[in-house]
Amino acid sequence: MASHPPFLLQNTLTGKLEPLEPQDSNFLRMYSCGPTVYSYAHIGNFRTFITSDLIVRTARAIGWDVRYVSNITDVGHLTEDDVADAGGEDKMAKALKSKEGEQFANVYDLARYYADALNLDWQILNLLEPDVRPRATEHITQQIEAIEKLIEKGHAYETADAVYFDVGSFKEYGKLSGNREANQLEESVRDIVVDPNKRDSRDFALWKKDDKHLMQWYSPFGRGFPGWHIECSVMSMQYLGEHFDLHGGGEDLIFPHHECEIAQSEGLTGKPFADMWVHTRFLQVEGAKMSKSKGNFFTVRDLTGPESKGGRNINPFAVRLALISGQYRKPYNFTFKTLSDCIQNVERFQAVEKVAEEGLKNGDDAPDTLGDALDSCYERTLHAMLDDLNTPLAISAALEGSKLITKQETLSKASAEKVKAWLDKTNALLGLFKYDNGYNPATATTEDTLSTKVEHLLEARQAARNARDYARADEIRDELDQMGIEVKDTPNGPTWKKKAKI
Amino acid sequence: MASHPPFLLQNTLTGKLEPLEPQDSNFLRMYSCGPTVYSYAHIGNFRTFITSDLIVRTARAIGWDVRYVSNITDVGHLTEDDVADAGGEDKMAKALKSKEGEQFANVYDLARYYADALNLDWQILNLLEPDVRPRATEHITQQIEAIEKLIEKGHAYETADAVYFDVGSFKEYGKLSGNREANQLEESVRDIVVDPNKRDSRDFALWKKDDKHLMQWYSPFGRGFPGWHIECSVMSMQYLGEHFDLHGGGEDLIFPHHECEIAQSEGLTGKPFADMWVHTRFLQVEGAKMSKSKGNFFTVRDLTGPESKGGRNINPFAVRLALISGQYRKPYNFTFKTLSDCIQNVERFQAVEKVAEEGLKNGDDAPDTLGDALDSCYERTLHAMLDDLNTPLAISAALEGSKLITKQETLSKASAEKVKAWLDKTNALLGLFKYDNGYNPATATTEDTLSTKVEHLLEARQAARNARDYARADEIRDELDQMGIEVKDTPNGPTWKKKAKI
Repeated sequence: MASHPPFLLQNTLTGKLEPLEPQDSNFLRMYSCGPTVYSYAHIGNFRTFITSDLIVRTARAIGWDVRYVSNITDVGHLTEDDVADAGGEDKMAKALKSKEGEQFANVYDLARYYADALNLDWQILNLLEPDVRPRATEHITQQIEAIEKLIEKGHAYETADAVYFDVGSFKEYGKLSGNREANQLEESVRDIVVDPNKRDSRDFALWKKDDKHLMQWYSPFGRGFPGWHIECSVMSMQYLGEHFDLHGGGEDLIFPHHECEIAQSEGLTGKPFADMWVHTRFLQVEGAKMSKSKGNFFTVRDLTGPESKGGRNINPFAVRLALISGQYRKPYNFTFKTLSDCIQNVERFQAVEKVAEEGLKNGDDAPDTLGDALDSCYERTLHAMLDDLNTPLAISAALEGSKLITKQETLSKASAEKVKAWLDKTNALLGLFKYDNGYNPATATTEDTLSTKVEHLLEARQAARNARDYARADEIRDELDQMGIEVKDTPNGPTWKKKAKI
Repeated sequence: MASHPPFLLQNTLTGKLEPLEPQDSNFLRMYSCGPTVYSYAHIGNFRTFITSDLIVRTARAIGWDVRYVSNITDVGHLTEDDVADAGGEDKMAKALKSKEGEQFANVYDLARYYADALNLDWQILNLLEPDVRPRATEHITQQIEAIEKLIEKGHAYETADAVYFDVGSFKEYGKLSGNREANQLEESVRDIVVDPNKRDSRDFALWKKDDKHLMQWYSPFGRGFPGWHIECSVMSMQYLGEHFDLHGGGEDLIFPHHECEIAQSEGLTGKPFADMWVHTRFLQVEGAKMSKSKGNFFTVRDLTGPESKGGRNINPFAVRLALISGQYRKPYNFTFKTLSDCIQNVERFQAVEKVAEEGLKNGDDAPDTLGDALDSCYERTLHAMLDDLNTPLAISAALEGSKLITKQETLSKASAEKVKAWLDKTNALLGLFKYDNGYNPATATTEDTLSTKVEHLLEARQAARNARDYARADEIRDELDQMGIEVKDTPNGPTWKKKAKI
């Protein structure tokens, strides 16, 4: 790996732009908060997930190994908002009672359905699969164990209704968000739990006793369910160690979620938890906060899904490109105008790849003329990413590279090789125009799609026969034969079947 | 619904052929034991699952509503075999350590992977989706609750190592399997748990205390995991009520699993548990017990999967038909010879459907000549199914119907309607030749398969042009246009893109 500038990121914990320096040099351990799976994730959520994806891709581009953990919150937690509403239901319980919820036999089925949907959207937008994707419901025992230890260490206490983290016992509480005063904290949390035994209004729940909750488990503190914050402390440390390098999430998680994670984790271990905290700003759509009532609320499938399912059939890479057209930590306005430009740009990269492939096949032996310019483009792309994920600059350097190759051109073999290598590197860094996350839209090729293919080949064969091009017709028949298709001509036209291998 | 004979099934509980009579007439509540998800299910497992599927289909054919519950065992239980091997690992823990297990971050991921695989195989073989498919890990709290109640009622006791069901406290233990003597029971169970505090060697574990097990939960009896049997008692009663109509599974489950389920459930409620117990005999393959070392062990994907993934590309309906070519409660030898015949038979039904569709489109107005004969075939098919799922007879009556229609024939509209109706009814009853379980191999139609389709249309257009058939070429262009494909002709041949809807 050639030398490169430091990998700078804005660290919320210090408020400064800082070099990311893994404890084990060249090995990055990072955790990124995933969604609560009570509905489809929207493109604002995905802006945040893609930030983590870009950190992983950039780290790998400079030769680091990465262990990347991102969770799924599949417990219907009462968030502070829900708790404020005494007797309020959590979002998963509400979702189960909604019209869409009718299809599920229980709340676990609902959570699993939306988790599967998340995974698919994740793949469709070409995000790399995390090394571990732990689910909260599958780490309940570890959460209870952590709560027991926090009580033992004097950081938590039990009341008749719950177990709370004792914020007063952790002097650094507020160090991430800067919310240090009690009144600030209260205002931010709006955590008006009706529990006369809660010692301090800043204290937050680790366990909520509730034998009516849809998801509940036995614990030494009675039946109930864990607070939201504890799952991320437990799962990040289980898979990354007690002290790891980077923790990411949306800006709304800074307080209270991440502040509470720090208090819990450092309270438990006495060690620093995550060194760098990276937060992604919220997305606006067409100039306003996304909202269903304004009609500017979009899930991934709303944009990329087929029209038959109410989608807009937009190239997923264009959606991805649009989402990263603004830098992660600045406010960003997602518009259909940008999306439209992004479609063109994705197609430009795809066209360049075709030209390169053509050159590799049929190019002449002239010496390369493009390599140096493309190397310079890649370097600028990479350096932009190392500079706090400056995606607008990175994309523009990549586009500049693409403009060196015009569609009509025939490249020499040597140039074509350079173009191909540059495209692959650029795509590995930005995930821009072709899948490199293992997702293959064609893997689901089945009976019916085979049938489509065969029907069209038969049609082409018929057309060739009508044109008396019997050589071509025989060629097509051979192709069908190689596909394992047996064709029979009957008075009613050809019929076919798949030859089984028995 | 026309009158019909009673629905007879062999009831393991009484040892007799008996009419199935739901407690609420016309509403059948049934439970069928699903697999432990530590690997792909094999075709022997599926013989059992299809028996339940055929019971549901037959019940619906005579106008009953059905509530059908089938579980997924996703806890790595120590079965009696594993326990016998002191310190032995359960099958899921073993699977996680195997070569295939390396891809999973934890045992939950492994379980979820094989559960997803099960669901796909289930769909591919055209089994109806259960109304509820509860998972053991998602009903741990209810299992602990049941164990507490059993202790309260004097049917269970706790030792330092476990909680056991006290077999002596349930006088009817043995009524399903006929194993009533202590020595019979011991011999059958081979349950040599090394626990000096176990009162009676027949007693079986409800909870195993173990804070090292990969899956473990807190409980009033300490950390550990539930015994295997309790999950089915708890989940069946949760979704079907304490007393339901039918419980199914493979013959290997009669003892101890189902015997223990009865003891637990009736011990808990004081009511009869399931009225009818239906067990499917094991499958042999090519005359021998399936075994990997003999090369006669097959999963669904081994037979139906694409060759590129090591499959044999066999029509899934033929596999289904082969699996039901013997009656469920008789020994059955699955052979490739039978499978080969089944391919022909499935294709026969599919061909008949094509003839019927052609008749509906282009048939003349002559009066129907087939309806009466087909009605008689269907009646014989249905009556065979009502007679203890006599599938060989049911299939032969269906095949007789198919032979009334020859491929060359052009049916009148009236006959075509009768043929179509007969096919649909027969398929609804046997799931024989087309998907009616919601599975659609084409739903995964995506970018790439669209691309295949478009490329072939472009090829057909080129062939038409070469043949100077410009009208046809324009037709194809219009078709592409309707698909939302924009074609551009360039010197290098046509290029195309999907029009986005922005």
